[in-house]
Amino acid sequence: MRRLARLLIALPLMPVMLSEQVAAEPVNLPEPLRIGAAELRERAAADSDAYSLVRALALEVGPRLAGSDGDRAAVAWALTTLMERDFEAVRAEDVAVPRWERGSTRVELTRPYVVRLAAETLGGSIGTSEYGIEAPVVGAANIAELQAMSTDAVAGKIVYLGQRMTRSRDLSGYLETVGNRVHGAAAAAELGAVGLVLRSVATGNHRLAHTGTMRYRPNVRRIPAFALSNPDADLLEYQLAGGQPVSLRLYSTARALGPARSANVIGEIRGSQRPDEIVLLAAHLDAWDLGSGAIDNAAGVAIVIEAARLVATMGRPARTLRIVLYANEEFGLSGANDYFARHRDTLGAHVVALEADMGAAPVWRFDSRVPDSALPLVSALHEALEPLGIERGDNAAFGGADISVLRDHGVPVLQLTQDMTHYFDWHHSASDTLDKVVPDELAQAVAAWATLIYLLANMDADLGRLPVPDPAG
Amino acid sequence: MRRLARLLIALPLMPVMLSEQVAAEPVNLPEPLRIGAAELRERAAADSDAYSLVRALALEVGPRLAGSDGDRAAVAWALTTLMERDFEAVRAEDVAVPRWERGSTRVELTRPYVVRLAAETLGGSIGTSEYGIEAPVVGAANIAELQAMSTDAVAGKIVYLGQRMTRSRDLSGYLETVGNRVHGAAAAAELGAVGLVLRSVATGNHRLAHTGTMRYRPNVRRIPAFALSNPDADLLEYQLAGGQPVSLRLYSTARALGPARSANVIGEIRGSQRPDEIVLLAAHLDAWDLGSGAIDNAAGVAIVIEAARLVATMGRPARTLRIVLYANEEFGLSGANDYFARHRDTLGAHVVALEADMGAAPVWRFDSRVPDSALPLVSALHEALEPLGIERGDNAAFGGADISVLRDHGVPVLQLTQDMTHYFDWHHSASDTLDKVVPDELAQAVAAWATLIYLLANMDADLGRLPVPDPAG
Repeated sequence: MRRLARLLIALPLMPVMLSEQVAAEPVNLPEPLRIGAAELRERAAADSDAYSLVRALALEVGPRLAGSDGDRAAVAWALTTLMERDFEAVRAEDVAVPRWERGSTRVELTRPYVVRLAAETLGGSIGTSEYGIEAPVVGAANIAELQAMSTDAVAGKIVYLGQRMTRSRDLSGYLETVGNRVHGAAAAAELGAVGLVLRSVATGNHRLAHTGTMRYRPNVRRIPAFALSNPDADLLEYQLAGGQPVSLRLYSTARALGPARSANVIGEIRGSQRPDEIVLLAAHLDAWDLGSGAIDNAAGVAIVIEAARLVATMGRPARTLRIVLYANEEFGLSGANDYFARHRDTLGAHVVALEADMGAAPVWRFDSRVPDSALPLVSALHEALEPLGIERGDNAAFGGADISVLRDHGVPVLQLTQDMTHYFDWHHSASDTLDKVVPDELAQAVAAWATLIYLLANMDADLGRLPVPDPAG
Repeated sequence: MRRLARLLIALPLMPVMLSEQVAAEPVNLPEPLRIGAAELRERAAADSDAYSLVRALALEVGPRLAGSDGDRAAVAWALTTLMERDFEAVRAEDVAVPRWERGSTRVELTRPYVVRLAAETLGGSIGTSEYGIEAPVVGAANIAELQAMSTDAVAGKIVYLGQRMTRSRDLSGYLETVGNRVHGAAAAAELGAVGLVLRSVATGNHRLAHTGTMRYRPNVRRIPAFALSNPDADLLEYQLAGGQPVSLRLYSTARALGPARSANVIGEIRGSQRPDEIVLLAAHLDAWDLGSGAIDNAAGVAIVIEAARLVATMGRPARTLRIVLYANEEFGLSGANDYFARHRDTLGAHVVALEADMGAAPVWRFDSRVPDSALPLVSALHEALEPLGIERGDNAAFGGADISVLRDHGVPVLQLTQDMTHYFDWHHSASDTLDKVVPDELAQAVAAWATLIYLLANMDADLGRLPVPDPAG
């Protein structure tokens, strides 16, 4: 293999093959590290109590939409929790967050008969007038299908987008569909629509709509936007398929308020040998207002805190572990942007970033986004995770929303992909509650995290830097 | 066995064993009937379209609480549907029904922090004043535990009953728990409570409360009564377990209105040989207001209509099949009582009654309540059902709420018990919608019903009469 690699180095026209061949060069982690990782992996599940942290954040703090009273309570809880667990350099870095208030939502089918539908206003949507909006409905599967329609067909109507999210074990079903939610209102407004209603970006069959962020476009009229539960979307589609006129009435008192203060809450375990090299562990503190944010994202907060605490039980790590509990991931990545702006000068110190924002189910796949040169090292890391039943995934990891700005500025990311088969049954809905967290499953995720970050914080090897996309591109 | 039976007849002190031994005497149905039943069983699933009926009642008629506009639409739909399918003697028998209006419900935890809970007012509950009721909460598992408490502990408080319904394949989990819902408010009021809140009688983990009937007691103060979703009940219990003061605020505009008109909708296939002997097939047309009543009970309506229609495809049966689509099962059995009063003179003509009110899942057990003398005949009927994977159950069948008055006046009942494992995830909640119906599962239930009622309508044998309980007892 080594000879082949040397041969390929002489062939500058084949850079892809080159990197693949270099990647195949095996790396071994030092024996003491591998033994330490195995020890931690074996006892982590039993020694962690991540479930209690999820319970405290979900039931004692409760709903915590960015800028709300609950958000402030969450920041206070996080500071206390990190200090109680002897994290170092515990601090809150103030973050200005936009404040949006849901108010009341009411969506009714008014033709062919009157019935209230299970609906929620999308996050960031404007409200309606006090009289609401009643209009005929025109349906399309998704934005592409909508954009193929004429202004005549859409103007003055309420647009319904019906694309159903596919259930999957990773994020793929969500990523295929979520664009309708984020950009649907602007696309509909461009064709003269007066409102947008879409099938929830969700796999659940309960009668609860799933919220989430939407965005307006400059110079395009702002129209109110709503999600229907899957059963209500079925009803609307059945009526539309019948060919007779179908109307909806939309009502919402949602509104934007002035900006509010929140904070990124940070705690560290300082490195003994290379304290200026940072392994960044991310999770967001905020949660949508409808549920108590148990899976999104009390679970992630609990995972990073417990995993870091467990690593510290093995002795002070060589590198610094930095937990960042981000403000307002859900409604605009305020904390992520603030962290980037504030720590831009020390970006080079961030040797790797990982984010926990995939619920409370077990980790089943280990993905990465690292320079090709680091792939053999990732394989060596994966060996330590395999006994937990974790597959090696690919090198195209998303990483996580809060660390995406770091990733786009060169910081390699690793991703412990959790089983998301049922995550989107509850995500962003009122049903995101503690009962969806299975303690043993959460403990497996903590064990995977502890094993991996133990190695990342103690190994001599480095993952290098990711290429930075051309900002003009 | 025959000799043993004769021996036992000589032992008048052992009546139970006697009847068991007589019951063991096998009965065979005539060959042509068994062939006919097998033919129908084989083709029923493919030839029926019960799903379209469920869809029409759930999506075209929609919510249909007794006495509402939807209820009137359901009666009209049922008359049309029976006539279109060539049923005979199609008619609506007027039934006066009580009318109750849910209005708005709002339940909040107010201590230790303020958060709205997913709650519904129980059916029949009074509302609160416009200011609502705010009071400390006292918890008990169930009525028995509540009744062991002192008036001092309960007076002026809101009582919370926390018993969790057990998931089961039959009705047993429900029957163990439903008493808390029906009688909880009266039991709490007797001890001076100002309101009742209970964990929904339900197995679902979505954030939707399950409604259902409750009753007041004469001379006991009427207090408003609410159900919480399972996750909200968990939250309340966690707060109560913490030992700190816990308060709720209850608000409801529920109210009783004057009686309204509804109807039992009836259609028949007249018997060719013994038209005056009636095989009664029951299902209720009404549904709770929160969902669209797909599993409770559009499915039952579809099952009895399609099963009877399939039997007619075998030629006119010997006995008369009478479908009764009852008014207001959910909120007081108005239709059942009216039918009994109106048809009391011909009660003897009702040779057997069956009710479909167990959702849309497959039939897995065949239960009966017949005189012991008819048990061998029931075994013979069961043989025709076995190829559908249906077990023989016991002779203590409930039968169904609408036919219970007939059962209590001597009419034998048979019960095709459907798989209820998931039924109570959705029952009486907003999530009772069409997507919970799996067409192939519903078709199995129709096949079981068609097979059984074909035999009941064509066999010469008779099931006899049940003993009538002592009305003074």
